[in-house]
Amino acid sequence: MVDAIIWKGSHLELLDQRVLPFEESYVRCHTAQETAHAIRDMVVRGAPAIGVTAAYGIVLALKNDSSESSFLEACEVLGASRPTAVNLFDAIALMRTLLSPFDSGQAAATAEQVAIKYHRDDQNKNREIGRHGAGFLTGQRRVLTHCNTGSLATAGWGTALGIVRQLHAEGRLVEVVADETRPYLQGARLTVWECEKDQIPVKLVTDGMGGYLMTHKMVDCVIVGADRIAANGDAANKIGTFMLALAAKHHGLPFIVAAPTTTIDLNTPDGSKIPIEQRPSSEVTHVRGQTITGKTTEVYNPAFDVTPAALISAIVTENGVHTFPYHFGE
Amino acid sequence: MVDAIIWKGSHLELLDQRVLPFEESYVRCHTAQETAHAIRDMVVRGAPAIGVTAAYGIVLALKNDSSESSFLEACEVLGASRPTAVNLFDAIALMRTLLSPFDSGQAAATAEQVAIKYHRDDQNKNREIGRHGAGFLTGQRRVLTHCNTGSLATAGWGTALGIVRQLHAEGRLVEVVADETRPYLQGARLTVWECEKDQIPVKLVTDGMGGYLMTHKMVDCVIVGADRIAANGDAANKIGTFMLALAAKHHGLPFIVAAPTTTIDLNTPDGSKIPIEQRPSSEVTHVRGQTITGKTTEVYNPAFDVTPAALISAIVTENGVHTFPYHFGE
Repeated sequence: MVDAIIWKGSHLELLDQRVLPFEESYVRCHTAQETAHAIRDMVVRGAPAIGVTAAYGIVLALKNDSSESSFLEACEVLGASRPTAVNLFDAIALMRTLLSPFDSGQAAATAEQVAIKYHRDDQNKNREIGRHGAGFLTGQRRVLTHCNTGSLATAGWGTALGIVRQLHAEGRLVEVVADETRPYLQGARLTVWECEKDQIPVKLVTDGMGGYLMTHKMVDCVIVGADRIAANGDAANKIGTFMLALAAKHHGLPFIVAAPTTTIDLNTPDGSKIPIEQRPSSEVTHVRGQTITGKTTEVYNPAFDVTPAALISAIVTENGVHTFPYHFGE
Repeated sequence: MVDAIIWKGSHLELLDQRVLPFEESYVRCHTAQETAHAIRDMVVRGAPAIGVTAAYGIVLALKNDSSESSFLEACEVLGASRPTAVNLFDAIALMRTLLSPFDSGQAAATAEQVAIKYHRDDQNKNREIGRHGAGFLTGQRRVLTHCNTGSLATAGWGTALGIVRQLHAEGRLVEVVADETRPYLQGARLTVWECEKDQIPVKLVTDGMGGYLMTHKMVDCVIVGADRIAANGDAANKIGTFMLALAAKHHGLPFIVAAPTTTIDLNTPDGSKIPIEQRPSSEVTHVRGQTITGKTTEVYNPAFDVTPAALISAIVTENGVHTFPYHFGE
């Protein structure tokens, strides 16, 4: 299992996910600004990984300047890096709580302890998610997954991919099929790479193939992560997830969302209130720097869609398996 | 409107759709073998266009050698080029009928007349499909389409894109949104190019965005072509179509399949009997010659999926608008 987020005490090292699997190199962050930049630029992505990274970003700010204004500026800069993943705001809120009342002499040391514990907690949660999720699924399984939810998207085993790893560890995984996940190709570049590294049997498909795979019994369940889950169970995840949920429903197959409880946002009553990030056109018009369309082509590029709770068979967190109807706010 | 199939009397010129929109060049075919090769290699694609091309391929065979064995060999070679599009077999069957009993002295001239008429008929059918389809849709429209069904996929205005052109001509098209259509990018490369050439307002999206666009009312109907329609209305079309149909159903939006009657295969009772072509892995692992994944990645690459008839609001042919339930065989 790869370490994508490495805390070095004086700086943070992030495995550069933009260039995987073609290069394995790390980006160093010495400031909150550099950390926010790395998040926005998708050096690191995946909701839980973004949360852990942001926590270290605050530590870096305080190591450079332990004043309260430095702390507040770091919270602001990191909070503005990406809008959809709630774990980012969760990590910042946790820091705000645990560093209050603000003590300039202690802030850096306290923040570092908080970040390291937050990081370790995410790893432990992944294991629990894996166990709970695998327990929900009986027998041998062919899993379809979307985007990347593994060691690159979290600090540990992964969320959806944590369940896949657990199934594999139990000898119950026939195969995982990874959607390539356009436009950013997290499936083709990251999930396939992670699975091959850990000798998990994996096949790659394009994002439009899910329905075909289900009709032909080439997959028998769908497991995905989430970037934000509303109080009613509506789940925002990588664009394309929603149509997989519709296809799973049509075929009567389990559709499972795996995420730590930090991804559940009780302040968001339902999915319509989740802000959806719009990403640059060039992600759609170019693949690995090369254009795939005309020079003047206009695009839409929403990064996430919302799967209605009624299409989700189970939401698996570190605390267990929740099934529809969901009442996280109660 | 572009001419993608040009009959020159002594040879056939095909606009090379593999390199559009980056290059506009033509491939010349002088024999049935070259023509079959061009179909298999996707120099030309799109069910109706393949039918017209195959008809000319037979003419080329007879111009080179007017014997019956030359004719039969051409039928065989062309018939083996691609398995899903029924128009290919329709064109060959038409030639077999109209050249029977076989007269070596007349065969080449007769075949040429048949091919030219078949070509012209396709153009006229496109216009009728456009008129019928646009008539089925009231008011201003935002259309989502998949793959390429325009002048490049047919001999004329196109099928699904023929309806889009008719809506545009009537001033009722707000915008057409084109799925990029991985793995072969017919949407990103061909549909966008065709629309821009004819000043039809078009946006490009990735294949996973359809559900989001519907939820956010950025599209209000889906219009696609078909490669083969079974007697019960089940329709094989480019991979990814099925999930768009599920999403349209979920949102209560019209899902329209546009195709000439030659695409309806009365010998195929339902969609489960339609052979689905499996294409090479490299189409998934590479984009424009560049890899997007690891060197050892394994893939599935079915080229088509089948949309069940119950998800199709209307099947539009040159004869009019059919609605569910479909009984083409009766």
